[in-house]
Amino acid sequence: MGGLVWLNGQLRPRTEATVSIDDFGFLYGAACFETMRAFGGVVFRLDRHLARLLGGLDALGVQSPGPGALAAAVRATLEANELREARVRLTVSPGAGAGRPDLSSARTPTVLVVVEPAPPDPLPATLVVSSQRVDAGRPLARAKTANYLASIVALAEARAAGGEDALLLGANGDAVEAATANLFVVAAGELLTPPVAAGPLPGVTREALLECAAAMGIPSGERPISRAVLSAADEVFVTNSIVGLRPVASVMGWWTGTSVPGPVTGRLAQSYAELVRRECGLG
Amino acid sequence: MGGLVWLNGQLRPRTEATVSIDDFGFLYGAACFETMRAFGGVVFRLDRHLARLLGGLDALGVQSPGPGALAAAVRATLEANELREARVRLTVSPGAGAGRPDLSSARTPTVLVVVEPAPPDPLPATLVVSSQRVDAGRPLARAKTANYLASIVALAEARAAGGEDALLLGANGDAVEAATANLFVVAAGELLTPPVAAGPLPGVTREALLECAAAMGIPSGERPISRAVLSAADEVFVTNSIVGLRPVASVMGWWTGTSVPGPVTGRLAQSYAELVRRECGLG
Repeated sequence: MGGLVWLNGQLRPRTEATVSIDDFGFLYGAACFETMRAFGGVVFRLDRHLARLLGGLDALGVQSPGPGALAAAVRATLEANELREARVRLTVSPGAGAGRPDLSSARTPTVLVVVEPAPPDPLPATLVVSSQRVDAGRPLARAKTANYLASIVALAEARAAGGEDALLLGANGDAVEAATANLFVVAAGELLTPPVAAGPLPGVTREALLECAAAMGIPSGERPISRAVLSAADEVFVTNSIVGLRPVASVMGWWTGTSVPGPVTGRLAQSYAELVRRECGLG
Repeated sequence: MGGLVWLNGQLRPRTEATVSIDDFGFLYGAACFETMRAFGGVVFRLDRHLARLLGGLDALGVQSPGPGALAAAVRATLEANELREARVRLTVSPGAGAGRPDLSSARTPTVLVVVEPAPPDPLPATLVVSSQRVDAGRPLARAKTANYLASIVALAEARAAGGEDALLLGANGDAVEAATANLFVVAAGELLTPPVAAGPLPGVTREALLECAAAMGIPSGERPISRAVLSAADEVFVTNSIVGLRPVASVMGWWTGTSVPGPVTGRLAQSYAELVRRECGLG
């Protein structure tokens, strides 16, 4: 919780950093954010994260600083905190308005960068099937917005039920994503993940994993994952920028892994680690 | 934009009032709020607003101050600003956490009351049918949460198209609600509004209107409003706590009113005004 954060061009102690009560982020969850991972001081695929962020802000009509300025803010925050292995959250909101749901009243975006030491690699997860549904038609469905209540509630439910993460289904009952991660299954030698049209966040790690699979010659597809498909899976894992690949040990009531992590998961994790090292310029 | 706001037990100038960058409201739109109207210094049906707010906070596991303390905060803010005819927004979030989507890290709720002079009665509205859909399965569907992006985007679209408010449909294409108001139509002498199960916010004014209709002997029903039903309507209006009843002049592409406000809308508006005067103890 300590450290320095970047807020609108200035570095200041996290505990003293505040936003206006009239900020659109606070009043309406009208903000976009990215959670990213720095390896050796370099954020993996920062350009992809910034493209997604700026796509969402553009849809909101927010005059955000450009990718160069945002990248510089991220780097400055990492350097000020002397962090090389870090979790980075970049948030941009339209800023403070007139206290009404009228975006035209916001003039100066709020730009916030918070960095923390990266957490240790997590243990395999138990997923709890959530009562929350993914709404594929939500606003800015391809951006990561601060309208994040479904994930918050799903995580709280999952933890109350003894799991570490939640599995959210779509309106038709197919598995779509975890609360804060994308879902993958290995079935009959093929790697599957739900299509973006089903409503998962199009994750940066998800995209990188599909590239790894292609490079390794593992057949993969973006296809609906019904309960039947998941129940018959050989391996299940979830991905996000912070955990990379996290093996799943069980999906409560639906599936139990026999060998966790499974062999394909293990090979993909190694390939992803190599991709990260290469792109972040590490030895 | 001036005036004093109540923030966590203290009155302070609005322009100086801030919340932590780690507030769950700012990071995730994880907050509940109410927008209310004071008449002669008395908030109409404050108890109903507080019940809805506390229901949402309870579902989030937030240890909010109780209705007595929240009512006192509202009254203190109105008095400090010497406002009798006012728009009041009460927001309660879980407060600041550890910067992760884990509600258990929040300890002290944020309580904010903002008051402003009530706006003048609005002109009849033109509604624009929105590309945004109401998700009847959204988290805390019966509470008013700061996951409010669909309304923000719908309003921006509607204004860009030359309207004043948006009409949001459900997944099946039925009309559900306006961006910040409930929808009513008068058809064949009957007053209709979409059922809560279709996903509209269960509005305090909506409930009061149904009471007015019952007291006046106007038959009413909570029933789906398809495009066909709306297109054949004799009168259309929307309701919320700030505007009361706002007549609708047209729903672009779907419906145009012939006499606005229509006769039933006019009688209901008078009945609602009398109900307000009675309950708020005005002459």
